[in-house]
Amino acid sequence: MSPQLPVPVRPPNPRVERAWYVLCTSRELGRRPLARQLYGVPLVLFRGAGGAAAALVDRCPHRNVPLSEGVVEGELLRCPYHGWRFDAAGRCKAIPGLAGEPDRAAHAALAHDVREQQGYVWVWGRAGEPGEGEPFRFRHADDPQYTVVRRKVSADASVHLVAENALDVPHTAFLHGGLFRSDADRKPIRCVVTREADRVACEYVGEARPSGLVGRLLSPSGGEVVHFDRFYLPSIVEVEYRIGAENHILVDAALTPVDDDRTDLYAVVALKSRIPGWLVRPLVTPVALRIFAQDQAILRKQVGTIQRFGGARFVSTEIDLVGPHILKLLLRAASGAPSPEQPSVREGTLLV
Amino acid sequence: MSPQLPVPVRPPNPRVERAWYVLCTSRELGRRPLARQLYGVPLVLFRGAGGAAAALVDRCPHRNVPLSEGVVEGELLRCPYHGWRFDAAGRCKAIPGLAGEPDRAAHAALAHDVREQQGYVWVWGRAGEPGEGEPFRFRHADDPQYTVVRRKVSADASVHLVAENALDVPHTAFLHGGLFRSDADRKPIRCVVTREADRVACEYVGEARPSGLVGRLLSPSGGEVVHFDRFYLPSIVEVEYRIGAENHILVDAALTPVDDDRTDLYAVVALKSRIPGWLVRPLVTPVALRIFAQDQAILRKQVGTIQRFGGARFVSTEIDLVGPHILKLLLRAASGAPSPEQPSVREGTLLV
Amino acid sequence: MSPQLPVPVRPPNPRVERAWYVLCTSRELGRRPLARQLYGVPLVLFRGAGGAAAALVDRCPHRNVPLSEGVVEGELLRCPYHGWRFDAAGRCKAIPGLAGEPDRAAHAALAHDVREQQGYVWVWGRAGEPGEGEPFRFRHADDPQYTVVRRKVSADASVHLVAENALDVPHTAFLHGGLFRSDADRKPIRCVVTREADRVACEYVGEARPSGLVGRLLSPSGGEVVHFDRFYLPSIVEVEYRIGAENHILVDAALTPVDDDRTDLYAVVALKSRIPGWLVRPLVTPVALRIFAQDQAILRKQVGTIQRFGGARFVSTEIDLVGPHILKLLLRAASGAPSPEQPSVREGTLLV
Repeated sequence: MSPQLPVPVRPPNPRVERAWYVLCTSRELGRRPLARQLYGVPLVLFRGAGGAAAALVDRCPHRNVPLSEGVVEGELLRCPYHGWRFDAAGRCKAIPGLAGEPDRAAHAALAHDVREQQGYVWVWGRAGEPGEGEPFRFRHADDPQYTVVRRKVSADASVHLVAENALDVPHTAFLHGGLFRSDADRKPIRCVVTREADRVACEYVGEARPSGLVGRLLSPSGGEVVHFDRFYLPSIVEVEYRIGAENHILVDAALTPVDDDRTDLYAVVALKSRIPGWLVRPLVTPVALRIFAQDQAILRKQVGTIQRFGGARFVSTEIDLVGPHILKLLLRAASGAPSPEQPSVREGTLLV
Repeated sequence: MSPQLPVPVRPPNPRVERAWYVLCTSRELGRRPLARQLYGVPLVLFRGAGGAAAALVDRCPHRNVPLSEGVVEGELLRCPYHGWRFDAAGRCKAIPGLAGEPDRAAHAALAHDVREQQGYVWVWGRAGEPGEGEPFRFRHADDPQYTVVRRKVSADASVHLVAENALDVPHTAFLHGGLFRSDADRKPIRCVVTREADRVACEYVGEARPSGLVGRLLSPSGGEVVHFDRFYLPSIVEVEYRIGAENHILVDAALTPVDDDRTDLYAVVALKSRIPGWLVRPLVTPVALRIFAQDQAILRKQVGTIQRFGGARFVSTEIDLVGPHILKLLLRAASGAPSPEQPSVREGTLLV
Repeated sequence: MSPQLPVPVRPPNPRVERAWYVLCTSRELGRRPLARQLYGVPLVLFRGAGGAAAALVDRCPHRNVPLSEGVVEGELLRCPYHGWRFDAAGRCKAIPGLAGEPDRAAHAALAHDVREQQGYVWVWGRAGEPGEGEPFRFRHADDPQYTVVRRKVSADASVHLVAENALDVPHTAFLHGGLFRSDADRKPIRCVVTREADRVACEYVGEARPSGLVGRLLSPSGGEVVHFDRFYLPSIVEVEYRIGAENHILVDAALTPVDDDRTDLYAVVALKSRIPGWLVRPLVTPVALRIFAQDQAILRKQVGTIQRFGGARFVSTEIDLVGPHILKLLLRAASGAPSPEQPSVREGTLLV
């Protein structure tokens, strides 16, 4: 990777289909079917036998009406047009008016594999095959020692652009000026980027406590800072801070590619601090939402420009520490190529 | 036709151009030009010499302004930009400012053949050629023994999908549950489908009086039911019921392909019953409009799904009695292939 | 050119890139960057060193955010995402956080050449090359003997269609009926069309004073009329009237192709008359705006029809005196072909 050369205009965003994605929270999925999209493909989620979450392609095989407009009857999802009924595996169990057997291969709806854990419904990205491995587990999401905040937000940009934005340090002094860092009195720190087959991490060594409001909230008394930014395939972003011995903040978000230019973020913020949770929560939440609103706005402008010019043309420098690795990981995963490579470690300098 | 095999994704809707279509009612066409579309092509209708209805392609040959934005002056339609004037045949009769002869072939607007009958203006679907045959005649539309209701409605779907919906029995128990039929206590009836070169008809033998509100309105005392659903090329749907000796209901609709996903329906309901017309009309009309609103909604969802998936992929069963035949008739008519075939007759069973 | 033959459907509008276009007035460009478009390409204008106007392609080379959303700091334009700073030539002068040199070719934004004169900011249509020649100068724009009115208006049509409309006489009797000319009592006049390598002009010989409101305002007492309509490549339209010895009206407009179907017009009306300026201005302005509103409306309808039919198909007659020449000039300039031809002169007759 030669960061000074302009990347040529790229084709649409890489699609990593053989992976787990959060399609909704457990609470969102009740008695009624739920319409969602993954990479632009409409899916319907519902609870079948025993309340188990299920996901079908949201198109009745008969006359292509969306099944999400139907109702759940017992364990079956019923189409609103002719009343065909489907189970969690997509099998057709009833065709009203038909004297013969309804359950034939041609009458089946396409099904996606599903896992439900930690309050999230994860769906395998490709229909008609069993999911591989297990979905990502959020660390400390269920840990009583931590204050945990869960939020779902959306951004009008691809997984790649959202993930790069989430793990990018240099923009914080500008876009979030005052909240985070400032553009004055910069000092060099060492950055260690480690890329493995399915992830990339950047450690910032020697960083001072963030000078803005966020830093003061987290650690009023200062202290040594340990800071990692991490990305895991296909779409997990993680920011981890330890400030002194007592403060630990872990922000994870599972990114769902709704379509090429829309991403849902299921975020879990886990925080351990001397400050009690009931105090931290009302202080941190509005700041976090303000930061995210600024990121949403800049991503929307970025995507608007990319669309107007018919494609992206990025140029990177050595302080674009994580973003280009994310794109490489996504492109290789989308192509299905094997990833036999050894971990690579690279060091750089960032003025913060 | 193997009804259990999925039909592959189809190209856009078949276009049957060499046919008559209703473009407006006689009452809609007054002193002002009227803008309409047929298969997505803008047309302008106006009344020329002696009040005769005329139809031109809605584009001035000079600078491509829509003629429908102009005015009718005497027998001529005048363009609003430079004032060129056209007669019912599209001939250019005046070019203001030009010293020479305006009436040249290059200055002519394209004209469509027109017939006006039974209160409707029918237009031949291809410009520049004489229409063949005569437009469809609505039975009993002018019969004083019948109560006749005329309605124009629109649906956001192709002629094929609208016609299939109009002539499909199995969906009525679900989509129109309670109004028509119900999903309980089904009994088998025999269905006889007859396809000829330009039409398909289905007779339902042994049907009980529809159990819902519509049936009770039509025939409070019950009686033997004779029920036919028919489709005539290019786009006429017909539902006929006789219940007992005294009740006859005939619903015809001429379908106009406004564009690939919009259809206008010019419907004529003719009804003979013991109940007097002044009583039937206010009872039947709101029920019919309710049924049609439900059909409009499901068609919109169906078309939305087809568009999101980039094409239709239908699977049919033996109780899709009429729809697949409609598509076959439309595809053959659109291709211009001859239709030498003998009538085919097929029987099936439907639980109603 | 055989004016009676229909021109076949044309590809999108010709793009003449190697030319000067007005992108804004001098007053519009203040301390904040200004977003504009030229042939659909987003540009950002700002004032750099010494207040000199500058124009860059409106896309940060780093992550493709629009620079027009940033701010001007000193002589530099700063991107709102990561704070990269660019000078008027597009050179990157700062990359916050980067220890190395920011000013590399790969980090530069694309710049357009700029001239500012007579209160307008002119931009060369192709990035990365010096502009050739000088922008058009408006005659009498700064002449104290003239009453001068400047207006910016927009039309939803290409430069070709707007220019043809502006210089077309025959439509005035219809579209602007009563304001300008009328359709009654027409008399023939002689028209002399002269086309040169970069322009076309039409002189109307023997024209009576325009009979409508505009004519009466300009010259209450009548007098001999001298009338020229002119087009200069790439996009200047000019209408000149002299009525008697004392009245001179010169309407110039520089047309800017915002995109294929949008044109901005920077108009300068210069008027010398016995009537004092303070009296002429409030009389002429509302009439001119009324005329322009009618032209905007008809252009919008024309473009709508062209889009619905998938392209333009024009037929011209001998009284389409200027429009076909404008199209020929634009097509040749867009193709980059040399224009060695001798001036051509042609005469015709127009009934006015």
